[in-house]
Amino acid sequence: MRRYSTTVVALLAAAGFLFSSFPAATAADVAATPTGVTIPKGYRNWQVVAPSQRDDMDQLRVILGNDIAMKAYRSKTLPFPDGAILAKLIWKRAKSAEFDNTFVPGEPVGVEFMVKDAKKYAGTGGWGFGRFVNGKPADEKQHGTCWPCHQANVKENDWVFTRYAR
Amino acid sequence: MRRYSTTVVALLAAAGFLFSSFPAATAADVAATPTGVTIPKGYRNWQVVAPSQRDDMDQLRVILGNDIAMKAYRSKTLPFPDGAILAKLIWKRAKSAEFDNTFVPGEPVGVEFMVKDAKKYAGTGGWGFGRFVNGKPADEKQHGTCWPCHQANVKENDWVFTRYAR
Repeated sequence: MRRYSTTVVALLAAAGFLFSSFPAATAADVAATPTGVTIPKGYRNWQVVAPSQRDDMDQLRVILGNDIAMKAYRSKTLPFPDGAILAKLIWKRAKSAEFDNTFVPGEPVGVEFMVKDAKKYAGTGGWGFGRFVNGKPADEKQHGTCWPCHQANVKENDWVFTRYAR
Repeated sequence: MRRYSTTVVALLAAAGFLFSSFPAATAADVAATPTGVTIPKGYRNWQVVAPSQRDDMDQLRVILGNDIAMKAYRSKTLPFPDGAILAKLIWKRAKSAEFDNTFVPGEPVGVEFMVKDAKKYAGTGGWGFGRFVNGKPADEKQHGTCWPCHQANVKENDWVFTRYAR
């Protein structure tokens, strides 16, 4: 636990993480993660990158992208440009009551974001990772798990797991 | 086989299915299903209704909706108004090479549409069902399987299986 927190703090420091550089906002209107990520307006209306199914967590997910991200995907531009944002919508999966052998979204689990800002997030591949559960930012410990996994697995795709599903 | 075709023909006739009422188009520019459904322009950019996972077919799917459909979903308007279109994108699922216990879209299987036109498709709940594989319309037999299943299972949701995933 202790080591995790220390690592996270070190990573954030390395990323030039300065609270003072965030736009002014009260806790009441914008909640930010420890990594400084907020919930982007209108993200539920973004276009689809791809769905996925995670068995060990019993979840269905969809990755959406804002216009900058979708343009990069469609033109196969890597790395993603600053301003690209990916959103992961996560649901517990539920057996369809009406169709055999089929799972559909059940309870929402949360939503996660990757925000590209090469300078601000230089210490984590240029990406700010943010997780929200019930609209509330997850804690530092949870945020410390994002980057190490992306870093270990998807360097050749600008640290992004999800490919555009054609 | 014979009986199927006969049923389909009967259903289409009941729906007031008239080739002469379709907009003029050559086979080269617009391919229509036997039910008269064409691939709507820009459907891949539509917003997400929900993802799903179908185990017996080893597939991942995403249902998208055009603006009219999404507005109806969000305002909980049933039946869907004329002009609403739903698109189902279907992929064979593939094990992620980079993340355990996770499936992602593999090869595309096809795309299906439900087009709301209460008058034109009066015989099939007001919906025109269309299936395309590799951009080509499926045959009459395949189209004959859509409506009976929707009819049997989701009357209370205007014959639509997929609910909006919040």
